Amino acid sequence: MLLSRAPGTTLVDISHALAPGDVRAAAYILGRAWRQFPQGSVHLAVVDPGVGTERGALAIRAHGHLFVGPDNGTFTIIIRDAAVQAVSLPIPSAASATFHGRDVFAPAAAALVMGAALETLGTPFAGIPERLSVREPHHEGKTLIGEVIYVDRFGTLVTNFTAENLPAYASIEIEGVEVGRLKRTFGDAPPGALVAYMGSAGEMEIAVRDGSAARRFGIGVGGKVRARLG
Amino acid sequence: MLLSRAPGTTLVDISHALAPGDVRAAAYILGRAWRQFPQGSVHLAVVDPGVGTERGALAIRAHGHLFVGPDNGTFTIIIRDAAVQAVSLPIPSAASATFHGRDVFAPAAAALVMGAALETLGTPFAGIPERLSVREPHHEGKTLIGEVIYVDRFGTLVTNFTAENLPAYASIEIEGVEVGRLKRTFGDAPPGALVAYMGSAGEMEIAVRDGSAARRFGIGVGGKVRARLG
Amino acid sequence: MLLSRAPGTTLVDISHALAPGDVRAAAYILGRAWRQFPQGSVHLAVVDPGVGTERGALAIRAHGHLFVGPDNGTFTIIIRDAAVQAVSLPIPSAASATFHGRDVFAPAAAALVMGAALETLGTPFAGIPERLSVREPHHEGKTLIGEVIYVDRFGTLVTNFTAENLPAYASIEIEGVEVGRLKRTFGDAPPGALVAYMGSAGEMEIAVRDGSAARRFGIGVGGKVRARLG
Repeated sequence: MLLSRAPGTTLVDISHALAPGDVRAAAYILGRAWRQFPQGSVHLAVVDPGVGTERGALAIRAHGHLFVGPDNGTFTIIIRDAAVQAVSLPIPSAASATFHGRDVFAPAAAALVMGAALETLGTPFAGIPERLSVREPHHEGKTLIGEVIYVDRFGTLVTNFTAENLPAYASIEIEGVEVGRLKRTFGDAPPGALVAYMGSAGEMEIAVRDGSAARRFGIGVGGKVRARLG
Repeated sequence: MLLSRAPGTTLVDISHALAPGDVRAAAYILGRAWRQFPQGSVHLAVVDPGVGTERGALAIRAHGHLFVGPDNGTFTIIIRDAAVQAVSLPIPSAASATFHGRDVFAPAAAALVMGAALETLGTPFAGIPERLSVREPHHEGKTLIGEVIYVDRFGTLVTNFTAENLPAYASIEIEGVEVGRLKRTFGDAPPGALVAYMGSAGEMEIAVRDGSAARRFGIGVGGKVRARLG
Repeated sequence: MLLSRAPGTTLVDISHALAPGDVRAAAYILGRAWRQFPQGSVHLAVVDPGVGTERGALAIRAHGHLFVGPDNGTFTIIIRDAAVQAVSLPIPSAASATFHGRDVFAPAAAALVMGAALETLGTPFAGIPERLSVREPHHEGKTLIGEVIYVDRFGTLVTNFTAENLPAYASIEIEGVEVGRLKRTFGDAPPGALVAYMGSAGEMEIAVRDGSAARRFGIGVGGKVRARLG
């Protein structure tokens, strides 16, 4: 559909491997990936468990990039701290009720690639796109409580601790197990050991060297992480 | 191999994730996918458990498109209701007996992309390409019995019920469990509930909202589906 | 990163599906894949469990091709029987300690694609790149003992027996189970049967027809294979 409508387009497949219906993972990955692309890039993000229902369909301009997808929280991170222009995409009567990726979103993305102005794709969207709850770490006495926001295919736990909210001297703990101070990289820990470090997208991650932290603890998104500050 | 022989070709990877040897899934996916491509497109489909044996190797023209792959049933849906011209591809003596995808089919597809006439690729194939059994729904009294023809990565069961053979008022049942009337989309059912609807390729599908129907019932291709008509 | 630095490059994704940290599989796949590409191609291979530690970062010229990746054994097969020129890539201070694929290797590969001379990318590397132990088959009386060097996604066991070291009349055995003489292809065995044959990359493979030899025996890389010669 994309290549038929926008021949010669360079497609970059960021992922077709998210868990079915995992809008939270879509929001996280989209929030990371767009930064690697040049200004004016078009980003198509369709994890769409509500396809065919009343949920909206959006095309958005933010950060000088264009984003297309369902209004279900996918844009949570994109629209944070950004001026946003959005239009509501019409659903053609011939569109399949279960495949707006093909019949609504890909055609809109292709039109943007071909140079169509965002405003011509739909009606102005005056509201605020759907946002997933995003929890910031909070203090309990001398402990900072954070949580897992994403699990990658290595079983690495990405948390909402960042260089901004986590003091460098903090000592990390997860599920009652001591991880200790931040290291530079997972390779600084012995094989099989737990290790925490600042990941390549700016968040603190917890990994098992040559293993899977997700499997070790059986925890996923929402799992609690503790940082002792004193 | 494709890019060496046909430089600059636009490759669209429909799937490298079918189950090993699942020719039936290849036939189904190929039967869906070609329709999205422009006239004259070349489709390379190699699920080839019989590679190196006596099974034939074909290049086919049908529907104004070109298809290349083993003669093992992959073309079952392509050749249904279509005028077909086919040639039998020669197997070079240097070809690996286990990788005709590389040594026979990709070179043939590349030649077609570069403009070679179908007839120049091999010897005329006068027979009928291998066909998998395709069962149509049948009646048992006031019940229409269909079956699962494909299971997608969400665990959705695609059936051989279509708008042509299934009355809109039918009530669906699978493995003795009531699914009820067709809905528009899986999002019309509550989370965890069973739902049946007409899918984006024209077949009735049964899904578990935010779950996997295949896992719920432990059934796959060939599994029976019932539609009560009265 | 690649397309930003080397716009218009044709990317061929050989695999993003190796097991996490499986450098041995990376070496095997890289050792096969480069041969299919035209002279002067740039090959980026990053399976990098030691990222951010003291392990080196290399760009290599061998066989008239260019290779970029960590100095952790990935180049074991590439550098065998080849004249090699190599440079040590600098690690920019701004590079993430856990993602040299993005911050070190992709930029180097893109520079090579854009025509930069290998020598300009880093400092001369006078040593020998890291090599994984590669075992050749050895004799025990009238038996030749080899081992599994790779397991593909079909569960096929690729061994270090080749046409050079394995007599055509040998009888194969694995885990105490008789496989018998080499056949031409897995399709020459009945469904469910064990079969050994010379694979498309030149090594002897053991498969279960329409099944998985890896699952049947529960063995993987390093598993022993025996060939009776008399």
